[in-house]
Amino acid sequence: MTSKSRTQTTFAPPVMEARRWLDGIEFPEDRPLINVSQAAPIDPPPAPLIAAMGEALADPATHLYGPVLGMPELREELARHWSAHYGANVSSENVAITSGCNQAFAACISALCREGDEILLPTPWYFNHKMWLDMSGVTTVPLPTDAELLPQVATAASLITSRTRAIVLVSPNNPGGKEYPAETLKAFFDLAHENGIRLIIDETYKDFDSRNGAPHDLLNAPEGRDTLIQLYSFSKAYRLTGHRVGAIIAGENLLPEVEKFLDTITICATQLGQRAALWGLQNLGPWVAGEREEILDRRAAIADNMPRLEARGWKLLGLGAYFAYLEHPFTDSSAQLAPKLVKEAGVLTLPGTMFMPETDPRGARQFRFAFANVNRAEIGELFERLEVLDWPVQQQGATALASKDLAQ
Amino acid sequence: MTSKSRTQTTFAPPVMEARRWLDGIEFPEDRPLINVSQAAPIDPPPAPLIAAMGEALADPATHLYGPVLGMPELREELARHWSAHYGANVSSENVAITSGCNQAFAACISALCREGDEILLPTPWYFNHKMWLDMSGVTTVPLPTDAELLPQVATAASLITSRTRAIVLVSPNNPGGKEYPAETLKAFFDLAHENGIRLIIDETYKDFDSRNGAPHDLLNAPEGRDTLIQLYSFSKAYRLTGHRVGAIIAGENLLPEVEKFLDTITICATQLGQRAALWGLQNLGPWVAGEREEILDRRAAIADNMPRLEARGWKLLGLGAYFAYLEHPFTDSSAQLAPKLVKEAGVLTLPGTMFMPETDPRGARQFRFAFANVNRAEIGELFERLEVLDWPVQQQGATALASKDLAQ
Repeated sequence: MTSKSRTQTTFAPPVMEARRWLDGIEFPEDRPLINVSQAAPIDPPPAPLIAAMGEALADPATHLYGPVLGMPELREELARHWSAHYGANVSSENVAITSGCNQAFAACISALCREGDEILLPTPWYFNHKMWLDMSGVTTVPLPTDAELLPQVATAASLITSRTRAIVLVSPNNPGGKEYPAETLKAFFDLAHENGIRLIIDETYKDFDSRNGAPHDLLNAPEGRDTLIQLYSFSKAYRLTGHRVGAIIAGENLLPEVEKFLDTITICATQLGQRAALWGLQNLGPWVAGEREEILDRRAAIADNMPRLEARGWKLLGLGAYFAYLEHPFTDSSAQLAPKLVKEAGVLTLPGTMFMPETDPRGARQFRFAFANVNRAEIGELFERLEVLDWPVQQQGATALASKDLAQ
Repeated sequence: MTSKSRTQTTFAPPVMEARRWLDGIEFPEDRPLINVSQAAPIDPPPAPLIAAMGEALADPATHLYGPVLGMPELREELARHWSAHYGANVSSENVAITSGCNQAFAACISALCREGDEILLPTPWYFNHKMWLDMSGVTTVPLPTDAELLPQVATAASLITSRTRAIVLVSPNNPGGKEYPAETLKAFFDLAHENGIRLIIDETYKDFDSRNGAPHDLLNAPEGRDTLIQLYSFSKAYRLTGHRVGAIIAGENLLPEVEKFLDTITICATQLGQRAALWGLQNLGPWVAGEREEILDRRAAIADNMPRLEARGWKLLGLGAYFAYLEHPFTDSSAQLAPKLVKEAGVLTLPGTMFMPETDPRGARQFRFAFANVNRAEIGELFERLEVLDWPVQQQGATALASKDLAQ
């Protein structure tokens, strides 16, 4: 083959690459690996949900194909929850169930874009978004965030062209941990609406937002349904990662296009996963609230420990949902330091370079710590291990300058 | 949007369209709907497999992400089975587990093709193949089959260009029911190898092939692993359609590319589905053999009943696996007749037009009957209902002429 196939235009899955750094390394029993690399629960779902799944196995329909856009009952229940949470009127006709939230994103992009179209994606980005855009022949237009990790509407406006089809935001943000203010989301919504393009908000981490109530009011905006697309995942709230269930909440017009994509790529999400998600929506509200409290406590533990690292030249750039996004003080790139962190500190985490275009120097200075699976004590231990790293440090000022250049 | 998005370049899912023909129609109790539209089991998996799935729910790992390319144990077990069935040496490094066989196809096409590349697809084709090629910006080059529903190597050779990346065969064939002879597969393999392109064989229905032993010897051909890609589904053999598990068996070089696609589109196949597939491979050999006998008996029932329809001008074009592919004698197109069949005969089946380019007149004369879910008695009843149709019939000779023109 003389030229690149679709998959050859993109990079290997970062999480799988990171797993390979563990190959051949043994961790002493009194100093186990601290794995803060993947944004996924590692505990099983609560026992009553597992029991409900066991009961569902007795129903023959659990083992058959279902409608491409999802189980009607699940679409309805999610619409009900969405309506309540956002104080808006969402119907089951606005909901499509997907095999996880990555697939929700892929379906929307394929429904909206053709070869050569453009999508605005704030940096740092979620790498699977970048990978799908690459494979789809869609040009990713990086939208550098400011020092607070927030994208600026004025910058975005200057990047929109006749080929732009959507702006994609992730809030709470992966990898940045930033909870986007309602006014930021509204400003981007207005920008998208004015330009006749879509605003896609990936709300995978919405259940762990530190703010109470709806994070935005966009579903009540006139013509909101033609502009806004929300993506959701059942994986985090109910610990169903292994069952692959996500969702798209969008205008009715988009769904027949989404249906074509889902039919061709998986036919339907698994029936058992969908039943589990439905059971979770119906029964696990209080349990998820408790989970959120725990995550918020871990987030607080990160903030409590930060002074120790700040004294060593680290900076906290973003903190929220499952993520702390940090700037490190070392001379070497985070890409080199990440495998070294495994060997020397027993810490597995992802370097900022995995969330950035190669041309953006900020990635080399940053790490994402996905802290959902480490408790307060382990977070203390994590910071202790980072605090004692005696690697050569960067001369002062260099990083700040690079960030400033990019934000402009 | 001024031009078509990826999904807008293709058609709506035929199976979902066919379901809509049922809307508002009631079937009398003594004359229920005979549904021969979808190629999927409608009974649940055998009880011991359901019990094994119940036990798997107790393992926390069932609810977590697994490796993108699949559970190592399942990849190994499938490699073992493949090695035994094909008398060849297949390792787990040749196996990727996907969320169903549609996804296996999509992953391979994305790993091989870029925008504007070409794929040879015999007609009638499996519509989800056509849909994915459309959405991928890949040109489908129709390869008309002969009167026996077999593709001809000479015709294929004349259609290969510098943009051709692969020839896709489905054997046993969906929709045609044709079991491709080993020599046909070998001839296509040689053609692909000589041209430095791939031969993709979708072997979803391999467990219901009427021939004993390996359907081809291509895994033992020198350099077979660089040319041949096989696709498989666990949905039919173990009745796991609702759990979405399929596989790719290919050269090791292809798998890192496949991994990028799978990671981005679903992360991994469901863990429970994979465990069920593994349990099936380890325990259900004799059970699947019994299922095959039953399907072969239903196939025989179709053959036994054919004379009744032949007397009315119908023709059996292909019969095998789950499918009977028939030519009807009527004036109107199968596209018009299919919804009419629901209303007037209580039979839901798919018209040939759903498996053909619009420019191919054969589709209008053909129907696919997916008979796996109808027993001998129901097949008798199906033929009775078709036999009495008194719709206007086509003048003789017209169809034969059209087919002849196309096969040349």
